[in-house]
Formats: sequence, C-alpha cells, structure tokens
Amino acid sequence: MAKTTPGRYFEDFRLGEVIRHATPRTVTVGDVSLYDSLYGMRFAVQSSDEFARKIGYPRAPLDDLLVFHVVFGKTVPDISRNAIANLGYAEGRFLQVVYPGDTLSATSEVIGLRENSNHKSGVVYVRTTGYKQDGSKVLEYIRWVMVRKRDDHSPSPPDNTPNLKSVVEPAELGEACPAIVNDAYDFRLAGSPFRYSDYVPGDRIDHVDGMTIQEAEHQIATRLYQNTARVHFDQYTQSKSQLGRRLIYGGHVISVARGLSFNGLANAFHVAAINGGRHVAPLSAGETVFAWSEVLEKAEVPARNDVGALRLRTIATKDRPCTDFPFRAEKEYERGVILDFDYWVLIPR
Amino acid sequence: MAKTTPGRYFEDFRLGEVIRHATPRTVTVGDVSLYDSLYGMRFAVQSSDEFARKIGYPRAPLDDLLVFHVVFGKTVPDISRNAIANLGYAEGRFLQVVYPGDTLSATSEVIGLRENSNHKSGVVYVRTTGYKQDGSKVLEYIRWVMVRKRDDHSPSPPDNTPNLKSVVEPAELGEACPAIVNDAYDFRLAGSPFRYSDYVPGDRIDHVDGMTIQEAEHQIATRLYQNTARVHFDQYTQSKSQLGRRLIYGGHVISVARGLSFNGLANAFHVAAINGGRHVAPLSAGETVFAWSEVLEKAEVPARNDVGALRLRTIATKDRPCTDFPFRAEKEYERGVILDFDYWVLIPR
Amino acid sequence: MAKTTPGRYFEDFRLGEVIRHATPRTVTVGDVSLYDSLYGMRFAVQSSDEFARKIGYPRAPLDDLLVFHVVFGKTVPDISRNAIANLGYAEGRFLQVVYPGDTLSATSEVIGLRENSNHKSGVVYVRTTGYKQDGSKVLEYIRWVMVRKRDDHSPSPPDNTPNLKSVVEPAELGEACPAIVNDAYDFRLAGSPFRYSDYVPGDRIDHVDGMTIQEAEHQIATRLYQNTARVHFDQYTQSKSQLGRRLIYGGHVISVARGLSFNGLANAFHVAAINGGRHVAPLSAGETVFAWSEVLEKAEVPARNDVGALRLRTIATKDRPCTDFPFRAEKEYERGVILDFDYWVLIPR
Repeated sequence: MAKTTPGRYFEDFRLGEVIRHATPRTVTVGDVSLYDSLYGMRFAVQSSDEFARKIGYPRAPLDDLLVFHVVFGKTVPDISRNAIANLGYAEGRFLQVVYPGDTLSATSEVIGLRENSNHKSGVVYVRTTGYKQDGSKVLEYIRWVMVRKRDDHSPSPPDNTPNLKSVVEPAELGEACPAIVNDAYDFRLAGSPFRYSDYVPGDRIDHVDGMTIQEAEHQIATRLYQNTARVHFDQYTQSKSQLGRRLIYGGHVISVARGLSFNGLANAFHVAAINGGRHVAPLSAGETVFAWSEVLEKAEVPARNDVGALRLRTIATKDRPCTDFPFRAEKEYERGVILDFDYWVLIPR
Repeated sequence: MAKTTPGRYFEDFRLGEVIRHATPRTVTVGDVSLYDSLYGMRFAVQSSDEFARKIGYPRAPLDDLLVFHVVFGKTVPDISRNAIANLGYAEGRFLQVVYPGDTLSATSEVIGLRENSNHKSGVVYVRTTGYKQDGSKVLEYIRWVMVRKRDDHSPSPPDNTPNLKSVVEPAELGEACPAIVNDAYDFRLAGSPFRYSDYVPGDRIDHVDGMTIQEAEHQIATRLYQNTARVHFDQYTQSKSQLGRRLIYGGHVISVARGLSFNGLANAFHVAAINGGRHVAPLSAGETVFAWSEVLEKAEVPARNDVGALRLRTIATKDRPCTDFPFRAEKEYERGVILDFDYWVLIPR
Repeated sequence: MAKTTPGRYFEDFRLGEVIRHATPRTVTVGDVSLYDSLYGMRFAVQSSDEFARKIGYPRAPLDDLLVFHVVFGKTVPDISRNAIANLGYAEGRFLQVVYPGDTLSATSEVIGLRENSNHKSGVVYVRTTGYKQDGSKVLEYIRWVMVRKRDDHSPSPPDNTPNLKSVVEPAELGEACPAIVNDAYDFRLAGSPFRYSDYVPGDRIDHVDGMTIQEAEHQIATRLYQNTARVHFDQYTQSKSQLGRRLIYGGHVISVARGLSFNGLANAFHVAAINGGRHVAPLSAGETVFAWSEVLEKAEVPARNDVGALRLRTIATKDRPCTDFPFRAEKEYERGVILDFDYWVLIPR
C-alpha cells in the first residue's frame, strides 16, 4: 500500500465534509524571533512583554499573521497539494489572542464546489478554523482554490458556490483583542503619534521602504509554517515550469507588506479580519517588495471605547516603488502589483 | 605562544584517550524553531507539547537529529578540523529524551587508529558520547574520519581497527523513548494512518518532494550546531579547492532527508539508532535534494508493546527525483545519490 | 497629514535634546538561537546555562553585542535614517547583564552638532542609552553620523564637537559582569587554556577561519535588531547606487569578527567596553570575512580578582586571510580591511 499521501483531487472533496488537518504545533518565542527576523516587525504590542502588559495583555501576543500562516500551513497537504491556484480569501476573523506556548491545530469544512467547464479542474471552497489546545477557536477564514481533477471523466458534483460577505462586519471585530488601557498606550514608544481619529477614509500612505526577498528567507518562513507546497522549495522541478523559478508563498508577501506598513500605520497593532485578498502576480527571489495602503473605511467597534477599526487596502508591488500609488487601471492591475489585500486593523482611539 | 588551536593531526591521537570537547550548549525552543524552519519538520510528537503530553511525554522532546548535530558539532574542533573525509558512522544510539532547557556536552574516546599506506594520513575511530547537565548520557555513536598527518615521517602507531556492529540490536533501542500511551496517539492528527503493522520489509517509499538548498540555510544550520569546519563557510578558500564551492555539512543532508521522509513515514517519530551512514557525494547550494526509503527490517523491541522498530535505509539524491528508487548498480552508487543512511526508527504499534 | 516618518535631517537635531526611541523589545531565547546561528558564537558563558551558573550567573546571559545591536536598531529611524555615513563610536560601556526575558528600550541625547563646510550635511553626535524594563541602564555609547540637511540654506547651529575619550578607563569596566567564581571556570570546557596572564600587549592573533556572508543572513540579522536602514534591504534602489548592491550593516561585521575571534580568545567571554570603531570599507554579500586581533593593553579592573581586562584591536578583512596581519600602511588601511574595532574584553585571571 502506498504510504505517501498524494493529496486530494477535486473529486475527492465532498460538500459539508470536515477535514481534520495534521500536525498540531506549539508556537514559541523561537517562532516569534524568526518571524520578526524575516519581516522586520516593529509593532510595540507584539514586540514587548512590558508594553503589552501595560495596556492589559498578560504578555506580548503573537503576531496575527503568524497565527494565520501556521493555521494555513496545516491545510496545504489536504486542500491545496494539487491546487493550480489559490484564488481568494474571505470572512477571515481572528477570534482569540494567541501566546507563545499555545498549541494550534486546524480543520477545514468544504463549503462549496464548482467544476470548471473544461472538466479538468474545479474550485473548492473551504472554511478553515484554527484552534487552541483547549478546543477554542483562534481564527476562521474562507479560501477557495482551483484543484486538478484526477480524471477528466469523473462525474461532476452539483454546482455549489457559497455566498461570501465582501466585508466582515465591525460588530464581528475585536474578539482577539482584549480591552486595552488607552491611557497606558505610549504612542512615542510605539513609534507614531497617529491614532484612530487621525486617519480618514481616502488616506493613502506610501510605506516607502523596499524589501528584497531571498530564496533562503521565504523557504525558512514557509517551512516554519509547515507549509509543504512543493512549488516553494523545489527548484529542480520548478526550472521546468512556466515561471522557471520557485514561487514564493503568497502569505510571505502579505507579511512583508504588513512589516513595511509599520511606517505609516505603527499603531495599527492588530489585524482583526481579512475581508479579501488576491495574489495578482507571482513573486520570485531577488525581487523587491514595496507597499502602500489606502484607508477604505473607518468603524467604531460596538461596545469598545479603547480601539477603533480601519479597513485598509494594502497593495504590494515588486520592483516598483509606490510613490504614485499603483493600483488598477480599468480592470487590469498596473505593472508591478502583486498583492491586493483588504483587511481590518484595530488602532487605539 | 600561539593562542589559536590548529586542531589535531593523526599523530596527535592516542588509543584509549578520552577528549572532553568544548562549549556546552543549552538547547532551547529557539533552536527548535530554527531546526523546524530549516527542514520543515512535521512529526507531531516533536511539534506539539499537547500531542507529546497525551502520549506520555512531559512536553515535546527535541528532534533526535538536532541532538545528534549539537553533539557532533562539539567534536569538530578536536577530531575533524584536519580531516580529509568523514568516512562513516556506526553503533549510534539515542539514550535519553532531550528537552528544551537541557544542556549538552560531549566527549570522544579514541577507539581505533590505522595509518594509511602512503604515510600521509590515517583513520581515526572515535566513540563520541553526548551528556546532559546531570552527567547522564543522551547519545553515543562511533565515527571514523581520515585525518592528515602533520609530518609524513612521524612513526606509525600499531594498526588498531575496532570491530563495529553493522546493526544496533533491537534490544538496545527505545531508551530515548518513554513508554507511550498508544490509545492516545491520534494518527489522523499525526498525518498518516500507517503504524508498525502496516510496514513490511522490502517496502520502498518515494518521499516525492524536493528541497533546494541555499548557502544561507546550511550555514545557519551548521553554525547553530557550533560546527566550525571551514569547508562549510569560507567561499574564498573553497573557490580554490577541487569542488570550487562550499561543501554542505553531511548532517544537513541527513536532516533534509529526514524532513522529506515525513511523507510516507509520518508516524516514525523517533530515530532510535544509527546503524551506518555514508556521504556518497558532496552537496552544494542550489542543488535539490530528493529521498526515498526502504524498510530493511522490522523488529519488536523487547518489553515494549507500545512501539515497534523499523530499520530503514534512506537514500538521498541531488537533482534526481526518486520515483525509480536510485541506489547502487554493482558496487557503484547510481548517478545523483549523495547519502546512504541506515537507521532504526520507532513507530506506534 | 503624512503618516509616514521621513526621519530627521541635520537641522532637526537640537543640542541637548533627548530622543526616546520607538519599539521596546523583549529579547528571548529565540533571539539567542538566531544570533548564534548567524555568527557561530561559542563562548561557553553565553552558550550554556550550566556553565554560567557554575561561575555565578543565574543563567546564561545574552551576548553583549546582541544587546548592542538591539539598542542600536532602535536609534536608526530617529538618528540615521537620512545618514550618509556612520562615522564612529566611542565611550561604549556595558552596564548590566541582560537575560532572555528582559525588555530593552533606548534614548539618545544629542551631544554635538557640526555642520559641514559644504552646508549640505552635518555631523550629529549622540549618546545612546539602553534600558531594561525597570528603567536601569544596560548600555551607553556615543556615535556620530553624517546626516543630510533638508535644505542647504537652513541656518547653521553653532559648532559643538564633544570631547570624547579615546579609551574607556579600566575602573569603568565590569559593571555588566558579576563577580565570577574562578575555580569553577572550566577552561577545557570553554575551549582554551589561555587566561588573563597568558596574553601580553603586542600579541597578534590570526583568527584563521573565513566566513562568507549571504544576503539572507545579514538581512535576517538586521531585521532581528529592528534596524530598518533601507540600504541593507532594498536591492532595487541600491542597484542604482554607487555601490550597486545592498550594504551590509556594520554591526553585522563586528559580530562576525567577534564570532571568528573565539579561535584565539575563547575565554574573553565578555565585551565590557567599546573604545572606538571604524567601518573602513563596505561589505557586500558573497564576500568572505577574516579577522585578526592585537592585544593593545592589559589592565586590572579595580577591586576585581576574578577577571582582568584586555584591550583589543580586532581588524576584519574581506577576501583576504589575515596570516600577515593586514592593517595600515602610513595613514591608509591596507587592501581588504573593512573594520578597525577597539574594545575591552574581560577574561578570567
């Protein structure tokens, strides 16, 4: 009997099925150091136990996107091993603070299936949930991926495309952020005087700095998340692909952009929700990532006087500085754009 | 007086001598994160404190090969600084679980000496032992290396080649694995349904994935182990060598292969013994490692109903996928083979 | 209002002003592992909790230069974002042991200003202080940088060049080193028999080994220190600079040299003071660093019988082994020299 897992093909997914993913993982201060060293994170709450304690956390929490990547990584062998493309994210919500020492695991429920008209592949929609050791939820998000069929002649399942919210409701934000003591939040120490009231919809912020990505860096990151998709690691095989090179994990780009966004959004310490995300073009090692953000919306979070929510669109580019805020012309993204990421952050009021 | 250590030459070794190696090292969760990020380890027992606790460990133990590399690294300045080649390993046994916070140190006893007929070098056999802070043993292995003579005219010691076992006895396995609670071992969470009874001698498993190695990665790993052999780090000098490039530490290849072997051996969570190992060809950065394993033997471990032992031969290749299980034709290894590693793993029954 | 920090220009600095820097940072065993893996550190006191305990520490302390880099990193956004060159260091003193779990923050006082005659830039002198969570000092040093003016026509401040000591006094050393139990210091385990009495002024030590630096390595290090100077990370922009490449953070070179210096100075476990330092030439990835040291001076530390002080000059080179101790001919540094570092270390008596 073959001992190696070939991964699921499109016809192996059943609507409503819940898949428990392998390899629970205890996250530690070692992971935090590596994460910081790969992305240059500087948000004070995640960087300093003391800063975190002063505003009400028991200690510095994990960066939200690190939690996301660890949960995402678990889903890869079951969901996207035979994926052609990662198509999108929606309804991502961070539900609980995660600290070093917590153990994360994940499940995914198949919530939609739609075969492509060529009968060679189909789109699989899953709602992935991340859990702590006590079974409580830390994260939920929907993603959809195009997955190969094993056999073009397999029967097609009925079309079943879920209705997805385009934006997470403000009332659903804040579960992974304890009530913070605003008076104890030291804006100078955090690196910027700007708080909730200083941002207005339409603000566009060039994050200025560029970050060139090396093969070793994205490989170290992606393995840290136990994400095993071979396109990220196997140059021998990739050299024969259309791209000709290893493809950098899309989540790596998201974290690079988040790291760059500190310059302009230093107090937006918590990613509360992911409304949507699109990997517009692939990134390869040797290319330099730049980013800019637009404030799409502001919202008070019901019953929270401590923090408010900013809905941001962060655009990342490669080998193109963002002084002119490159985005879309008509329906086409402009040259150099690689990521279009729509998310909610919380920031002190 | 010269303050720099030139390292020992062949004539500096005395049969029976015990060398205490420098630099005790406290291993931490930081080392674990780095190790995982460099090799993509996914064995559940080492990845999750919760998973480990449920089956009887107090917390997640260190990966066995990380322990091996840290112990090995200490021996380099004394044993193999002037080595021409690392010839082999035998009788490697893991003797105790190691946890983050433990401090490792090492000694080596010279157990064999045999000068080469050209009088320019000789083979040194050492039994290296790794210890914890309390003086208890965590690891023992024999290795032999070809070491330069300082002076071709130095007198030759009497030939003394130790008798080495080709295979560690099953009765000697399991000391570094506590009795585990089989019913609590969650095979789904561990990533595979296959247990001891599912493997049979002769099984050949292609581990499928490829991993391209970068200079930064093997350097970071090798320094983490405090292994200072200059061939791994000094491109200026290596550019004038026959290889023309930095040589990747052989242990790095072993760990890459072990990481890849998860796909097919997900429950073989503990390396219990090293029967032998041969670095067939050098690996350089930019090359892609593939691996496959054969089950050579199965054995019950006396007095253990919880786990059984599989004797594996894992072959690693470079720039050659292992779908056709490349190994040896006659006495010659096939093109692309870089590692032939013979070891025992424990797996739940 | 622009949310992005452009950084200060020369005319933004006021004599006597104290700048509180952003992003407090809790240092952890994760940082230690990364630091060790990047530089191959082997000093026993920092490597082993057990070794440290036996000589009187509660546990292994952080490497002094790791503390320096973390403090230095905080100053970059405020002090040297618009710097043309980092000109020098003086009066650096380590004032307290730092352990994993401590949180570091920093301030800088402007202690000197001198506009250049071209009115395009000026030299800013700052005394930077690093603090622990309880407000106690861990480190103090002076550095001076050449900073661009925003506007050539801005009025010049009065010239104000501080008097700097060329050497820290022996009486000022030792505050970051507890009284150690000499009898418990195991020289064999530390890797060398040489103690204070074995070194004499004029001793020159070739540290022998070479270390080739990769882009991923210096980027990972520099981000670990939250040092965001874009010259280290942005190849897109650097490709248009005179150097044409990313410039490696000077502190990375200092730590590489310190790591290499173990071979010859294994017991010089504590950097107690930085008398001066000059980055003679830039280092780029792919180049190989070598180093040698000269004992400039020996000094007893008042009231300390446990340790003595060696004043060292460590010279680092690129792509040039140090067998012939390259340094200066007349006023010019010899080919290949990249670092001239003058500092005090403590070593057991």
